[in-house]
Amino acid sequence: MKHPYVLTVLALLLSVSAIPAMAQEALTFRQPDRSPVVNADTTITFNLRAPLAEKVALIGIGYEPIAMQKDSAGLWSVTTKLRPDLYTYAFDVDGVRTIDPSNVYTARDIASLSNVAIVPGGNADMYAVQDVPHGTVSKIWYDSPALGAKRRMTIYTPAGYDANPDKRYPVLYLLHGMGGDEEAWNELGRASIILDNLIASGEAEPMIVVMPNGNATQIAAPGQTAEGNYTPDGARSIGSLNAFESSIKDIMAYTDANFRTIPDKKHRAIAGLSMGGGHAWRTSMLYPDDFDYVGLFSAAVRWNGGGVDDSTTGEQERAEKIQRQFAEPPALYWIAIGKDDFLYGINSEYRSFLDSLSIPYEYHESEGGHTWTNWRDYLLLFTPRLFRN
Amino acid sequence: MKHPYVLTVLALLLSVSAIPAMAQEALTFRQPDRSPVVNADTTITFNLRAPLAEKVALIGIGYEPIAMQKDSAGLWSVTTKLRPDLYTYAFDVDGVRTIDPSNVYTARDIASLSNVAIVPGGNADMYAVQDVPHGTVSKIWYDSPALGAKRRMTIYTPAGYDANPDKRYPVLYLLHGMGGDEEAWNELGRASIILDNLIASGEAEPMIVVMPNGNATQIAAPGQTAEGNYTPDGARSIGSLNAFESSIKDIMAYTDANFRTIPDKKHRAIAGLSMGGGHAWRTSMLYPDDFDYVGLFSAAVRWNGGGVDDSTTGEQERAEKIQRQFAEPPALYWIAIGKDDFLYGINSEYRSFLDSLSIPYEYHESEGGHTWTNWRDYLLLFTPRLFRN
Repeated sequence: MKHPYVLTVLALLLSVSAIPAMAQEALTFRQPDRSPVVNADTTITFNLRAPLAEKVALIGIGYEPIAMQKDSAGLWSVTTKLRPDLYTYAFDVDGVRTIDPSNVYTARDIASLSNVAIVPGGNADMYAVQDVPHGTVSKIWYDSPALGAKRRMTIYTPAGYDANPDKRYPVLYLLHGMGGDEEAWNELGRASIILDNLIASGEAEPMIVVMPNGNATQIAAPGQTAEGNYTPDGARSIGSLNAFESSIKDIMAYTDANFRTIPDKKHRAIAGLSMGGGHAWRTSMLYPDDFDYVGLFSAAVRWNGGGVDDSTTGEQERAEKIQRQFAEPPALYWIAIGKDDFLYGINSEYRSFLDSLSIPYEYHESEGGHTWTNWRDYLLLFTPRLFRN
Repeated sequence: MKHPYVLTVLALLLSVSAIPAMAQEALTFRQPDRSPVVNADTTITFNLRAPLAEKVALIGIGYEPIAMQKDSAGLWSVTTKLRPDLYTYAFDVDGVRTIDPSNVYTARDIASLSNVAIVPGGNADMYAVQDVPHGTVSKIWYDSPALGAKRRMTIYTPAGYDANPDKRYPVLYLLHGMGGDEEAWNELGRASIILDNLIASGEAEPMIVVMPNGNATQIAAPGQTAEGNYTPDGARSIGSLNAFESSIKDIMAYTDANFRTIPDKKHRAIAGLSMGGGHAWRTSMLYPDDFDYVGLFSAAVRWNGGGVDDSTTGEQERAEKIQRQFAEPPALYWIAIGKDDFLYGINSEYRSFLDSLSIPYEYHESEGGHTWTNWRDYLLLFTPRLFRN
């Protein structure tokens, strides 16, 4: 017996996992069932042990719940063929939304938590952590005098940032949608992983990515504020739509002061999804000298409530504002939306408006709707275009 | 109608939340039931809507499941009086472990996810985010030649670190337990929040806290590696117990090269819980010139499997090693354990061993067992003692 103490302590630890009396501690070293399992034929199997349940379904994948079947031991399963992508899912157990207890990998979208599963291949390989140099992801508090608050943001610095202390980098400001927060783009959007992979393959320039919180009434994500036991409430976003433009200058000032940026228009991009697309649209118009690359992903392009493009102003004034932005046109003005997106209509109207003014832009129309599948894909298409001039 | 577009888009967005066809998107802005709710009398109420369930219990709080009662609308509830603390919990719904769908605030402990709830007051106020200056929490990849891998760690830099580019800081190396990883101390241990609060009140010196991954066979936490759909497996820790001592020098080298540390013994501390306590114990013995502060929290002090204190070596050799460490004694050698901890016995034996050699240490004996409640409390007691000499 070579290592008696190892075995003794291990035995002690493992025995503990069987003791229900371990208050507050869940020393579960391995779940009894594996789920999800990607099979050799690239189908994927989801499992949940629920012997007493009457009805269990896989939810969040596909348009309808997918019924699961129970075996004689009470294990509910379903095997399905899915195209390569990153999926979020949960189980519906007799009407109760349940996280897969065998899968600790989860992500939060607004007020609900889901499990994450990757079916490899295609784009999904760009969303998976690969064996490449990784950047750093930091949660940072900065002062926003415009909003009278200390606020939290996520900042990605690329691999090599620390090792090259004399090198300066361009910056992408990447904005979340309604109900999201400073964690959304990195969790559900896989931004740092996508950037790691694109930079490693040479498809994108090394860049800093700044992911602020676009809800002016919220200083930080759930669990990160003094509010304690806090559940997100989309209504919090609503009052804050006007304020992003005033806070972006604070965010840029902090970033330029504390990171090795190249602080000029040529080396700044701004992009966002949905509400954040609206923010990117309005901000780039309000500050035409600041951003040379603009990405509008499923953007709420007519979203407003005062400020640069108050809808109470007339079309002529809006035309003047966008023409001022394009007096020295951005290197890239990129609009992307899915055919089934509920914002498709206002994006079409906006493109007609740009066309009527002979304003140049690029347009990418995808399948699908208002989904993270599309936004991850757009990020994958947009970032290789940045800072190449 | 002042902001017609706001209302239009808002209406569109909110209508979406009612459409089950939003594949992969869970635009739930507000859960129908609030849970948990801290009541005015400081009791706390947990709620779960499960009309079809036969039996629902609150689990993870207290030693036994706490039965919940169903009302006529199918809402299961229980109200309980808990002393101030941070609690992790889940629900058992007819035998299925379920996360509270109304509470997105969760933490992972090894292979299981739990909800987090804070009952305010006492120590719990130090675990809650307060309106004080906040440090930065970064997830960083560093090279470990000793282990032949790029690995991930969490680093906390205190508030003011960026604003004071000429200031250098002491470092606490803070190590997780068996089955944990580089996220454990910051998630369940609330390390950055505790440090923010202690530093803001002047109770602790501003310091950098380095939280590495102590499992030599694991490069990063679940979801952060190329393994994809990965569920933790405590067995992965087992093979890696020997290797921490060889990797700590890589971790220190990276930290000293990339952060403004004061790279000497007087400004370095090492502490850990359980297996990490064993790592702190062995590492501080192996490198007696590196750490002036040592914290052994519920430590696996005789855990070994080769290296500095291989149990196959005799007591005399162990005595020589610890005496070499105490030839120039650390400023603080702090041992803490709960009366009910399953490692209480080997800690008592270890203290007897130290006493037999007249080696000085401080000892803190608490109530309770091998729990995060104790480890957070120990961090709260230990960090104010650091770097005061």
